[in-house]
Amino acid sequence: MDMDTLLVAPAGLEQVEGALARFFDESKVRAAKIGPGYHALWETLERCTAGGKRFRPRLVMSAYQMLGGTDLDNAAEVGAAFEMLHTALIVHDDVIDRDFIRRGIPNVSGRYRAIAEDAGLSPDGARHIGFSAGVIAGDLALSNAYRLLERADAPAATRRRLGEILDEAVFASAAGEFLDIETSLTSAMPPLEDIVQMARLKTSVYSFEGPLQAGAVLAGADEEVIGRLGDFGRDAGIAYQIADDLLGVFGNETRTGKTNWGDLREGKRTALMSYVAARPEWESISSLVGDSGMSASDADHVRRVLVDSGARDYSVDLAAQYAARARAHLESDAVPATLRSALHPVVTAVVDRVH
Amino acid sequence: MDMDTLLVAPAGLEQVEGALARFFDESKVRAAKIGPGYHALWETLERCTAGGKRFRPRLVMSAYQMLGGTDLDNAAEVGAAFEMLHTALIVHDDVIDRDFIRRGIPNVSGRYRAIAEDAGLSPDGARHIGFSAGVIAGDLALSNAYRLLERADAPAATRRRLGEILDEAVFASAAGEFLDIETSLTSAMPPLEDIVQMARLKTSVYSFEGPLQAGAVLAGADEEVIGRLGDFGRDAGIAYQIADDLLGVFGNETRTGKTNWGDLREGKRTALMSYVAARPEWESISSLVGDSGMSASDADHVRRVLVDSGARDYSVDLAAQYAARARAHLESDAVPATLRSALHPVVTAVVDRVH
Repeated sequence: MDMDTLLVAPAGLEQVEGALARFFDESKVRAAKIGPGYHALWETLERCTAGGKRFRPRLVMSAYQMLGGTDLDNAAEVGAAFEMLHTALIVHDDVIDRDFIRRGIPNVSGRYRAIAEDAGLSPDGARHIGFSAGVIAGDLALSNAYRLLERADAPAATRRRLGEILDEAVFASAAGEFLDIETSLTSAMPPLEDIVQMARLKTSVYSFEGPLQAGAVLAGADEEVIGRLGDFGRDAGIAYQIADDLLGVFGNETRTGKTNWGDLREGKRTALMSYVAARPEWESISSLVGDSGMSASDADHVRRVLVDSGARDYSVDLAAQYAARARAHLESDAVPATLRSALHPVVTAVVDRVH
Repeated sequence: MDMDTLLVAPAGLEQVEGALARFFDESKVRAAKIGPGYHALWETLERCTAGGKRFRPRLVMSAYQMLGGTDLDNAAEVGAAFEMLHTALIVHDDVIDRDFIRRGIPNVSGRYRAIAEDAGLSPDGARHIGFSAGVIAGDLALSNAYRLLERADAPAATRRRLGEILDEAVFASAAGEFLDIETSLTSAMPPLEDIVQMARLKTSVYSFEGPLQAGAVLAGADEEVIGRLGDFGRDAGIAYQIADDLLGVFGNETRTGKTNWGDLREGKRTALMSYVAARPEWESISSLVGDSGMSASDADHVRRVLVDSGARDYSVDLAAQYAARARAHLESDAVPATLRSALHPVVTAVVDRVH
């Protein structure tokens, strides 16, 4: 589900674009001095960043302004830092997931795999060239998330705090990716608790908690608000992930832009699967889920079982519960009404999509 | 060639160990809260860092102290940052080179490949699990290089400067890795100019220039010294790389600890190869170099041709020339005699090894 439609565009998004454009222009000038190939790698990285919907910068800019911040250029550097982290994570995630396409076009790995194939490498060799270019490009994006954050002008204590927030986002995202790998080593479906933890690590921290808290910290908000925004972000991210996993199985392919079949074929660990795996119905689908040879009619059968067993309703309800909890965290006099009303639709939209 | 023997241990190396130990202890405590698997990943990363000879921290600490710096604890954070960058680069380099062993023991990828094999995955699947864990662990090391640097206490202008030096090291190293991949797509041996550029990007910047300049900047050295150290580091790194490539082909296996055959089999682009590739002798070895099926007697033949064609003498001489240039950069009243006499042996040792 596209995150962009979840949040009305705050002021300052052009400044974020400006910060990113400046950063890429400078980097490309530096890279061109080294050689045309390195310049082209930077162009590829810029293209990966260009397609984004700026959801995380939107959260940074919303929190910042609604908590009294007025220096949009400065906040935009923080927004750009989170966008760059997002690019780093998707580029490396694609390497880990062995994906060569993102948003319908070849990603970094896809582009360099094609170049290597044209150069006459074997399929395996070309694939590895693609992965290698992806590793390097992701490293550049990751390190420059720190560099963009450093560009924001702020007192030492604020800078330290912003650094900790970015660090927590990287630490949690890496943990989430790692747990994903660990889980993939067993065929067992993890308990719901683990699914929720993974959603928090992979989605909540860098996409919700971090951007909101960074905007608040830069605006000089008090601890109560910063804490509330963290709690909101945690539960909103979990609600988002549960809903996104529902759409991955039951969503309209045209609307979501991806097949609603891939997740079943991969055996993706979701709240849906965790629920059904603990029930007798599991027996009739356990050999299908995660089978790379799954047919369309197999997928239909699995979907039917997920509905009949109550797994679907359970997940829809669970997403709604986390959304409600997220909203409740904002019910504090410390949170300005404007911010509350900007953030409520984020979680409402999440739940509406899956009803 | 081990870099550690190139430089007498300066004071402050225990402080560097202390900074690294503190960092890993804190990180492991955080990771344990997420789960035992993530904690184990951090332990693996710590082990990768533990084997290092601290060459880069040695340069940081030497430059810092000989230019008047006295706060060893503070400088140690900068030394630790460069060590962490080194870990990040070797972990990701191993992914790119598809290596599963480093310093005789399984590296991050090797460890997780073995775990995946034990879990019953196919060789290809297990290998990919290994790479994926390597990508994640390298990301953690890379991002924490920035974090360690932030721990150093310094005025805003100094911090900015240190950030730029680390950035340049990452930017150049990524470029070097990338050019390596690009070159591997053609069978042509690049001209010497490209070999030298690659050595500078992959070795000089992060292993010599960056650490020396960071130590100097933190000590508050003047621009002339900082510039001279950069020039010294550039040429010393190039000399080191040319010498290391010579040892990779002609070195005594027992002393270097690695086979003197792998580089030939890989077709590694070196000054040796660039020289011989432009001469008629190339015809008799071009089909052997880079052939994964190369035998011991093939390797002997290639070595003989490298000697007879003059490629070996040429490279030995080239390393000596860069070493001499490196030393000459230190001939300035701005560079304290103590620092000059600490750094001279670094380049002398490099050249002595290959004579």
